[in-house]
Amino acid sequence: MPRGELFDPLFGAAELGATLSDRAWITALIQVECALARAQAATGVLDEEYANVIDAAGPELAGRLDPEQLGGAAVAGGNPVIPLVGELRRACAAANVPPAAVHKGATSQDILDNALSLLAQRAGTLVVDDLRAAADSAATLARDHRDTPMAARTLGQQALPTTFGVLAAGWCAALDRAAGSVTAALADLPVQFGGAAGTLAALYPHGPAIADALAAELGLAPQRVPWHTDRTPLAELATALGVAAGAVSKIATDIVALSATEIGEVSEDSPGGSSAMPHKRNSVAAITARAAARRVPGLVATALGAMDHEMQRAAGAWHAEWETVTDLLRLTGGAAHRLAQSLAGLRVDPAAMSRNLTVTGGLLLAERVTAALSEHTERAREIVTAAATADPPALDSDPEIVAYLGADRVRELLDPAGYLGHAADFVTRVLGERGDEVDGPATHETAGPQ
Amino acid sequence: MPRGELFDPLFGAAELGATLSDRAWITALIQVECALARAQAATGVLDEEYANVIDAAGPELAGRLDPEQLGGAAVAGGNPVIPLVGELRRACAAANVPPAAVHKGATSQDILDNALSLLAQRAGTLVVDDLRAAADSAATLARDHRDTPMAARTLGQQALPTTFGVLAAGWCAALDRAAGSVTAALADLPVQFGGAAGTLAALYPHGPAIADALAAELGLAPQRVPWHTDRTPLAELATALGVAAGAVSKIATDIVALSATEIGEVSEDSPGGSSAMPHKRNSVAAITARAAARRVPGLVATALGAMDHEMQRAAGAWHAEWETVTDLLRLTGGAAHRLAQSLAGLRVDPAAMSRNLTVTGGLLLAERVTAALSEHTERAREIVTAAATADPPALDSDPEIVAYLGADRVRELLDPAGYLGHAADFVTRVLGERGDEVDGPATHETAGPQ
Amino acid sequence: MPRGELFDPLFGAAELGATLSDRAWITALIQVECALARAQAATGVLDEEYANVIDAAGPELAGRLDPEQLGGAAVAGGNPVIPLVGELRRACAAANVPPAAVHKGATSQDILDNALSLLAQRAGTLVVDDLRAAADSAATLARDHRDTPMAARTLGQQALPTTFGVLAAGWCAALDRAAGSVTAALADLPVQFGGAAGTLAALYPHGPAIADALAAELGLAPQRVPWHTDRTPLAELATALGVAAGAVSKIATDIVALSATEIGEVSEDSPGGSSAMPHKRNSVAAITARAAARRVPGLVATALGAMDHEMQRAAGAWHAEWETVTDLLRLTGGAAHRLAQSLAGLRVDPAAMSRNLTVTGGLLLAERVTAALSEHTERAREIVTAAATADPPALDSDPEIVAYLGADRVRELLDPAGYLGHAADFVTRVLGERGDEVDGPATHETAGPQ
Amino acid sequence: MPRGELFDPLFGAAELGATLSDRAWITALIQVECALARAQAATGVLDEEYANVIDAAGPELAGRLDPEQLGGAAVAGGNPVIPLVGELRRACAAANVPPAAVHKGATSQDILDNALSLLAQRAGTLVVDDLRAAADSAATLARDHRDTPMAARTLGQQALPTTFGVLAAGWCAALDRAAGSVTAALADLPVQFGGAAGTLAALYPHGPAIADALAAELGLAPQRVPWHTDRTPLAELATALGVAAGAVSKIATDIVALSATEIGEVSEDSPGGSSAMPHKRNSVAAITARAAARRVPGLVATALGAMDHEMQRAAGAWHAEWETVTDLLRLTGGAAHRLAQSLAGLRVDPAAMSRNLTVTGGLLLAERVTAALSEHTERAREIVTAAATADPPALDSDPEIVAYLGADRVRELLDPAGYLGHAADFVTRVLGERGDEVDGPATHETAGPQ
Repeated sequence: MPRGELFDPLFGAAELGATLSDRAWITALIQVECALARAQAATGVLDEEYANVIDAAGPELAGRLDPEQLGGAAVAGGNPVIPLVGELRRACAAANVPPAAVHKGATSQDILDNALSLLAQRAGTLVVDDLRAAADSAATLARDHRDTPMAARTLGQQALPTTFGVLAAGWCAALDRAAGSVTAALADLPVQFGGAAGTLAALYPHGPAIADALAAELGLAPQRVPWHTDRTPLAELATALGVAAGAVSKIATDIVALSATEIGEVSEDSPGGSSAMPHKRNSVAAITARAAARRVPGLVATALGAMDHEMQRAAGAWHAEWETVTDLLRLTGGAAHRLAQSLAGLRVDPAAMSRNLTVTGGLLLAERVTAALSEHTERAREIVTAAATADPPALDSDPEIVAYLGADRVRELLDPAGYLGHAADFVTRVLGERGDEVDGPATHETAGPQ
Repeated sequence: MPRGELFDPLFGAAELGATLSDRAWITALIQVECALARAQAATGVLDEEYANVIDAAGPELAGRLDPEQLGGAAVAGGNPVIPLVGELRRACAAANVPPAAVHKGATSQDILDNALSLLAQRAGTLVVDDLRAAADSAATLARDHRDTPMAARTLGQQALPTTFGVLAAGWCAALDRAAGSVTAALADLPVQFGGAAGTLAALYPHGPAIADALAAELGLAPQRVPWHTDRTPLAELATALGVAAGAVSKIATDIVALSATEIGEVSEDSPGGSSAMPHKRNSVAAITARAAARRVPGLVATALGAMDHEMQRAAGAWHAEWETVTDLLRLTGGAAHRLAQSLAGLRVDPAAMSRNLTVTGGLLLAERVTAALSEHTERAREIVTAAATADPPALDSDPEIVAYLGADRVRELLDPAGYLGHAADFVTRVLGERGDEVDGPATHETAGPQ
Repeated sequence: MPRGELFDPLFGAAELGATLSDRAWITALIQVECALARAQAATGVLDEEYANVIDAAGPELAGRLDPEQLGGAAVAGGNPVIPLVGELRRACAAANVPPAAVHKGATSQDILDNALSLLAQRAGTLVVDDLRAAADSAATLARDHRDTPMAARTLGQQALPTTFGVLAAGWCAALDRAAGSVTAALADLPVQFGGAAGTLAALYPHGPAIADALAAELGLAPQRVPWHTDRTPLAELATALGVAAGAVSKIATDIVALSATEIGEVSEDSPGGSSAMPHKRNSVAAITARAAARRVPGLVATALGAMDHEMQRAAGAWHAEWETVTDLLRLTGGAAHRLAQSLAGLRVDPAAMSRNLTVTGGLLLAERVTAALSEHTERAREIVTAAATADPPALDSDPEIVAYLGADRVRELLDPAGYLGHAADFVTRVLGERGDEVDGPATHETAGPQ
Repeated sequence: MPRGELFDPLFGAAELGATLSDRAWITALIQVECALARAQAATGVLDEEYANVIDAAGPELAGRLDPEQLGGAAVAGGNPVIPLVGELRRACAAANVPPAAVHKGATSQDILDNALSLLAQRAGTLVVDDLRAAADSAATLARDHRDTPMAARTLGQQALPTTFGVLAAGWCAALDRAAGSVTAALADLPVQFGGAAGTLAALYPHGPAIADALAAELGLAPQRVPWHTDRTPLAELATALGVAAGAVSKIATDIVALSATEIGEVSEDSPGGSSAMPHKRNSVAAITARAAARRVPGLVATALGAMDHEMQRAAGAWHAEWETVTDLLRLTGGAAHRLAQSLAGLRVDPAAMSRNLTVTGGLLLAERVTAALSEHTERAREIVTAAATADPPALDSDPEIVAYLGADRVRELLDPAGYLGHAADFVTRVLGERGDEVDGPATHETAGPQ
């Protein structure tokens, strides 16, 4: 009995799941066999009529084969290609294609490796789309809130003012970079074609030409040499996905934190409710993005461990890659999908941000007041510390501070919007690098401490 | 589109997959809701008639619900229990059961946690069965080959003689222990029932009584307190599975190593062949056991990382457990299943073992010859080292050695069967601890160096 | 140049670091050699005078050997025991102890495995002490705040009232269990003694007797059979540490969350400050506990992966255990130490808890009001939902609710302290199981919805 | 008490250890502070005389600070920068540098992040050097043995002939790529400078200029925006190291496998011996390379998990990076170092390779014989299979085969050297891509089956 349909949607992988299903695997395996026949016909190694028969039989077989039955038949030989080749040979036999014309000079790993690359490219496109969609939403948030002050929080505590814009710009930059890295890793996936032992002996002297033709047929990069036991390309895809999931995870965590009841600075537009608790507005999209993303690092470790591919074909490490790579695609892409949903409808509450900026009674600006005061007295730090540790803190009404600076200047110094440093500049820079224009001047002509 | 049927059989999880499928999840979730109704009726909190209606509606619903549809409906609220409760309420409404009677005082996590425990117990039984079957086969091998000499190999090199029996006894001991640990972790899984926030406030003062009744209904251990955010029980199950997979992995690796072409000391009775390479006898069962087992440690890390369950319900860590735990069960159980197949039909070749014992020309016994020689001369080590590093090594014909010990004694000393130490004793001990009797005397009355 | 002294204290491992240092390793390795000599003397295999010389020379050598020099000498043979045995033989030669009397019948792995177990026991005692200290502090918090209401937070949002006591009781239960599991794993560590190939051939027929005597000398459990390649005992220690780190991590996360500026319900008594930001009160102990704990799952995965110990001694997996196990001890123990510090001085602010309970305007009690109202009208849910989604929410002043229930009853229903369910019961149960008495009645005679 | 000197050399990290020691950390932290002062002087934000004093005091302080004492002082505030800044201020106070001139506008994370990047670059250079040295040795092996036939082994079994040259060429290609990726990740490490909350408010409007000047001073890439919580650069370094370790691991595994007693095709020039077992020639360098490499994937998972950096500074995830990244550098570099040693002195035994090619009695060439025979009869496969499964296999003497092809042709077909496919071509391609020339023609003018 199968799985996947119950939990995939929740973790953002409804569409992705289809590109990585049993049916998708069977289809991809057969597509590689058909492409091999065409490539061999193109290089003169296979009778073109045979190739045409194979090419026609493939899609029909792909729609017909029963995953459970093929899975059962795969047990004896250790992979599904062996029985699948048998089926394809039978399907072509009626048209007098000899068995040897199918899967000619290839080994099971050739077929499986390339099918996995096809799946990776198909699923990977969705992963990248979702990373980019999330980045676009983050960019919009950054632009819209370039100058919206909020409290920066370090080590769990309010630290200084910042803007929501620069936080969102940081999200955007990380997602853009992740999308680029996954795209590059997918584009770098070369065809893998080595024959039974990596020498392509059975196809000599046509091996490299067939490999190149096969790459072109499949839309994969050409191989330099067979990489049947140098699994660097798959490991690089796995790690690019791992970094992408890490970027998603940080953003989802921020959204969950900012939508806490006591903070309430953001909320999703479709939060999860509860029949018993009408006030609950759970950030379900961000929560499930986190859930999917946190399952990724362990899988990356598995993928890296599977690089330990002994001799010319590993007795286990190779087989361990298949579902590890597809799980990585599904979970990373699912996390990106859910994050994109969260960001697309994220509601930002500048009033809540403003309110939270006041809960420390101006202490967030202590650094700034000290700097201003130190132009008047060497006791600046001492005075500010005393005022800051009074109960309640009294930076705005401390007699000494007011005496030195005047009430108006103190009020000005305690305005968070006047101490945002380069926040707007950083937003502009991130948006500029992705080609977005930012209108209008930054708000803070007011300089920092200098 | 679903997955699982294509690769599960290969990795030993055909039967296990069914216990962990989408359908199995839906069934278990509904069984928990029905059990809750019965438990509440038993404690007087719910009208018994309502409970009967719910109990009758559940199985029908479990067979009818479409995983894809339920999965889609789960997205909004963040888990499948929310729409499932709606379905169950609708199914019971015709019999005038009010909505509040279904899922009374419970929260989604209560249902999901217990359903996961039910799945774990069902799948876990198969895991343990396969671990025990593998252990039984290892025990048989240990008994049958208690006195079959073979070369011990350390750090990749032949070291000293040992027996295949003591190697297999070590396998048996590890599998027995793993089976015991998984069994204990399954038996220790308590019911989890805390209500919306862990206080069971909506069921006060009946909460603990209902929790105990629910445990009894589900065949789970009683809880001491709700463990909604103390995930120790699941983590202990995950780690017990991790250790079991490690034990399987070591054995599968040994089988693959011993069935290498150049060693050929064991072979599977149904090795994987190759149409192009008629001599190939791949140890497919052991290979796929390794493949499944090596995916487990990364999942254990994920499960341990998910213990970081913030506050009263984690925003992501909780959701990350579901498929992690089921993957752990499937992969560990699959690895055990494939290993059990490998061991059940393992063919041992004592002649090959005997032949391999000779490839170093007696050097495996150098330690023993030195000990014997040192009773005659202080130059023992020097003489043996010289003879051992001659090309070819000449322990049996070195004039000095023969002069001191006599040709007969040298020949005796170089017999691997006479230098097996406590190998047979250890076999007997391992078999004895599992209640197996071992007939007959150990073969080596010949003492060691003393 | 060495490491450890700079970061160990920060991550709670100042004391632990000393038990796992290079010097501690050298000492333990030599202690095993000395214990072996004594065990062999006790079983009549070694001249007692030789054993006395070895036993006397060991401690002197342990204080004298230079780690850097021994480390350099270990490169050639692949482990430090080989040069260390040479040193010990030289140290004993002056007293006419023949070389063969030292390390008699043993292999490097015997010495290293047992030394690692000694280190584990020494460091493990500190780990357990810190887990227990943390549990004790949590128990005190649970007792002191058994009836202190606070908001339960699920999925990042306030859910229902609970108590700080039941939260702390959950921490306590997890820590107690972790301490017990680590203790058990340490106590289960058997001596490991198999000789060059696991048969103890060189010591036949005295092998098992020596192994038992060695266990007694070292304070380790006896072995049933040599476990040179069945690494279950070490894996079980690793996973017990992993679960303990997970328990620590959850608690540290809670402390960080509750000490956030906007929540402010707990604070450490020695929070980390900042010269520039006088208001910062970073929960440094909890933060560094989290940091140490989150490095543990990856190490557990490594330890489990290292169970793949091929044949009679693994070519790499064995060596990978050494620092992995010591890192696990240091990081888990360090996390426990920092958590114990955090909990020992944790300041709880019931007023802040009370204040936070009001931020939703009574919505936390909507479940309860609905239950009460439904005894009067079938429109209960509808009325409450309308009142709850008004802006601002008006559960306490909604005309219909007040009309049905009366203002006094409404006020009573909206009191969080009256809807704590079994929170106090669970505190009492946890404390009772550890033998702590809890005085006084629970506060909430007020029943739940029934 | 410190650690590192005992085990680092064994795992190849003697030199690396020094670049990552406590002393190296302290030095790097101070170098960042000094570079910051210079950068601020260059941008006119700091009095040049102050910068000169700081710059002069730094190195003196770096040599003087006691790691243990600094480590102890780091506990309270949660990182070593806080006490270190205090020390540096004291050291500069004598020259009338005011406290605020030291660490001006910076936060602890700025200093720590950049110090970690400095350590990474210093250690990383050694890592890359060792990867390149290993690649060079592999290239030499590939060139020298371009035409040395050996058995290819797939799934643990001999499959077809290949060459040692193409195996070594695959090693070379993977190592070259790994060296390039690590180099790129190191070069991509940008300066990280954001001030207390990522806005550089205290240095406005000079923040970006100072950040650029600091990057130039430290030899780091410029930052686009502060990446205090977007940890992509570190994650990409971690994963590049992870892939490199995977590449090392595969090669070390191959070396261990090929140096097994029964195979004996390669051996290290300084194998590890055993006093008791004079025949042992353990491939210690490869073994310890494996050991170090297999500890890497778990650490990569930890590094990826630490990307979950909440808000403007993570409460734990940030601190978890420090030792994780240095461990990754040490273990990956150590593995590369040991592998480089193994490869530099690897002895290849073409005679053993040739001998092993014969153990299947020509079955490795069954594919080729079948192809040749099928030009004469449709029963080719049937005839070959019968001959191959005879006991002993009789491909060279089967009457039918000889009748069809003639004894000479059969002998020719069974010569492994004549069925090497594109092995030599692939060697040439790999060597050509790294600029190495390959002299002479490939040996196998004999074509494959076509």
